[in-house]
Amino acid sequence: MTLTLRHYSALTFAALCLCFGSVHAQDEILAEAQTTKLRITTVADGLVHPWGMVFLPNGDMLVTERAGTLRRVTPEGEKGPAIEGLPTIVSRGQGGLLDVTLDPDFDDNRWVYVAFSEPGDGGTSTAVARGQLDGNQLNNVQVIFSQQPKVQSDGHFGSRLVFADDGTLFITLGDRQQSYEAADAQDLGSHIGTVVRIYPDGRVPASNPFVGDDNALPEIWSYGHRNIQGADLHPTTRELWTGEHGPQGGDEINRTRAGENYGWPIITYGVHYGGATILDGKTHAEGMEQPIFYWTPSIANAGMTFYTGDKFPQWQNNLLVTGLRSRLLSRLVVEGDRVIHEERLLHDELGLRLRDIVQGPDDFLYLLTDERDGKILRMEPAN
Amino acid sequence: MTLTLRHYSALTFAALCLCFGSVHAQDEILAEAQTTKLRITTVADGLVHPWGMVFLPNGDMLVTERAGTLRRVTPEGEKGPAIEGLPTIVSRGQGGLLDVTLDPDFDDNRWVYVAFSEPGDGGTSTAVARGQLDGNQLNNVQVIFSQQPKVQSDGHFGSRLVFADDGTLFITLGDRQQSYEAADAQDLGSHIGTVVRIYPDGRVPASNPFVGDDNALPEIWSYGHRNIQGADLHPTTRELWTGEHGPQGGDEINRTRAGENYGWPIITYGVHYGGATILDGKTHAEGMEQPIFYWTPSIANAGMTFYTGDKFPQWQNNLLVTGLRSRLLSRLVVEGDRVIHEERLLHDELGLRLRDIVQGPDDFLYLLTDERDGKILRMEPAN
Repeated sequence: MTLTLRHYSALTFAALCLCFGSVHAQDEILAEAQTTKLRITTVADGLVHPWGMVFLPNGDMLVTERAGTLRRVTPEGEKGPAIEGLPTIVSRGQGGLLDVTLDPDFDDNRWVYVAFSEPGDGGTSTAVARGQLDGNQLNNVQVIFSQQPKVQSDGHFGSRLVFADDGTLFITLGDRQQSYEAADAQDLGSHIGTVVRIYPDGRVPASNPFVGDDNALPEIWSYGHRNIQGADLHPTTRELWTGEHGPQGGDEINRTRAGENYGWPIITYGVHYGGATILDGKTHAEGMEQPIFYWTPSIANAGMTFYTGDKFPQWQNNLLVTGLRSRLLSRLVVEGDRVIHEERLLHDELGLRLRDIVQGPDDFLYLLTDERDGKILRMEPAN
Repeated sequence: MTLTLRHYSALTFAALCLCFGSVHAQDEILAEAQTTKLRITTVADGLVHPWGMVFLPNGDMLVTERAGTLRRVTPEGEKGPAIEGLPTIVSRGQGGLLDVTLDPDFDDNRWVYVAFSEPGDGGTSTAVARGQLDGNQLNNVQVIFSQQPKVQSDGHFGSRLVFADDGTLFITLGDRQQSYEAADAQDLGSHIGTVVRIYPDGRVPASNPFVGDDNALPEIWSYGHRNIQGADLHPTTRELWTGEHGPQGGDEINRTRAGENYGWPIITYGVHYGGATILDGKTHAEGMEQPIFYWTPSIANAGMTFYTGDKFPQWQNNLLVTGLRSRLLSRLVVEGDRVIHEERLLHDELGLRLRDIVQGPDDFLYLLTDERDGKILRMEPAN
């Protein structure tokens, strides 16, 4: 694959920007994918470790910064003040203010949902709150979910929020990267290492797979997960697909079905540095699901989205997955339940940790860079 | 992935070899895969563009050289004289003596099958002959299949030979890389771009999908193929899987089922140099199958085998695919009908065009290098 790269320096554009009175950076980077040329422009910068993003009906974006700030950003890149009304958030290690999404009926009810690290007895846990957005204020804020138990750890909060077509809310969680004294991802008596499914007000759907099982928490949808930072609905089957980090290698994409066990920490394709396998090299076990696709060595996958717009016609229904340490964007061509091809993009052109990817209402793709001076980038076809 | 490389020069070993009286090269190369370290040693060299290989019950190998020679090679690497009795072979361009396999009842009937380029009215075609091996002689030689029509081309002969469990013989063919004036891979009135299925004596099984169709040749099993140089039975489903070259990109692995159309030259993931797609960028069409996996850019895939031995326990049922121009070995982790992971091996350590890969009776893997001084290499775990 030939990669071409043109990077117009911020300095060059500073002059241009002054002429046009623009207030934000206008870097433009061109990249070449197998099927199209790409133009990547900076929509906004100066965001501190942005983690999640959602578009409001008027075209503004709501963006989380991990330190605990939720901001509105206009399409022109102007950042609003911190939105008020969020619950208490612990920002430490991997924790803080994480994903954000809108209610499917947002136009009518103004509910905004955020995932965050919640303090409490025993340490912290992932939690989800909602509040009704009015200008730069969240009103009637309610915590609708708290992962149990709280533990002493600053890692593996998971935290993507995805509404299913039936109006229930999927919350992807992590194993909290602790010693497993409290619980591990195989323990259905905790939410450690699970995906949960609730109604938007926190009630538990009676159709959840473990409802009525005295040994399981009823919110659990699936379990055996390590740290899920990417999730989206498959565009045709409408099932939940998730992406989770492996230990060293073994990053996974999973079709995440009700009641199923995805194996962590019993089975994994992860390996230690030097090539030795962990967990006795066990990759299969009865009653545990295989991934749809995995990466060894790790790409450190974070956000992901199925592309369903018309701006990249050859990427229709492709799964786009961002990488942190790998600093790449992986394009997976998905046919039914199979990944039939992978293209790796943007590593050379951007060289930035990519936390999340979102399809905009304009069908362009928007990336969040996980940096101290984090950016919202827009990716368009350049042809 | 960290790659380590130690290459003991032929010179160093020449001294050792003299001590032990060995007559062939003993280069040893170490490589590191994700799951195991690998030791690669030269079993035999001095083979001129070897193309196909099969193990005889006594441990000797039968190896084809593209120029038209079939030879026996002992486990110690001693090459026998040219085996006599082969039909007339046209060795030009990609054509010549290609694959070789044994009858499932070889112990009793001594039938050896070879694929080759056959001269005749109109040009050449792929053909398959069999003969009964007696020492260095093939007796009772019969041509059991000739691709129709013969055309003026030296390319895309396909040519892998795989026996199904029911005793029928799959022959993988190519589109002959011509102007398609005669026929193309969508034309069921020719064998161009098809897989055919016959009995070992050349008769057509009544269960073939197009038997009774006046517009189709009855030997055809599947069609719409470009150039299939790799084929093996899936270890659990026992279906035929094949590997074919794309035009520029779009190299494919296909689960190759009765009567199905694999799309060439109508649909492809191939692209032209510079990134423009060919065939109007059409990748899908009604009634045409999607690949199980594809490569863009091309790896120029050639031979392939599912690994089913016990020497590489973590490679159980993995599909190993050799690359020509890419000079690599691709390890595909297959779960059911899905490729869930790819590891690329040997490019850095060998840097040689790899034509074929065969699992030996010792469960080690044997590679053929497509060079003027071609080799048989044995790959073992080095741990």
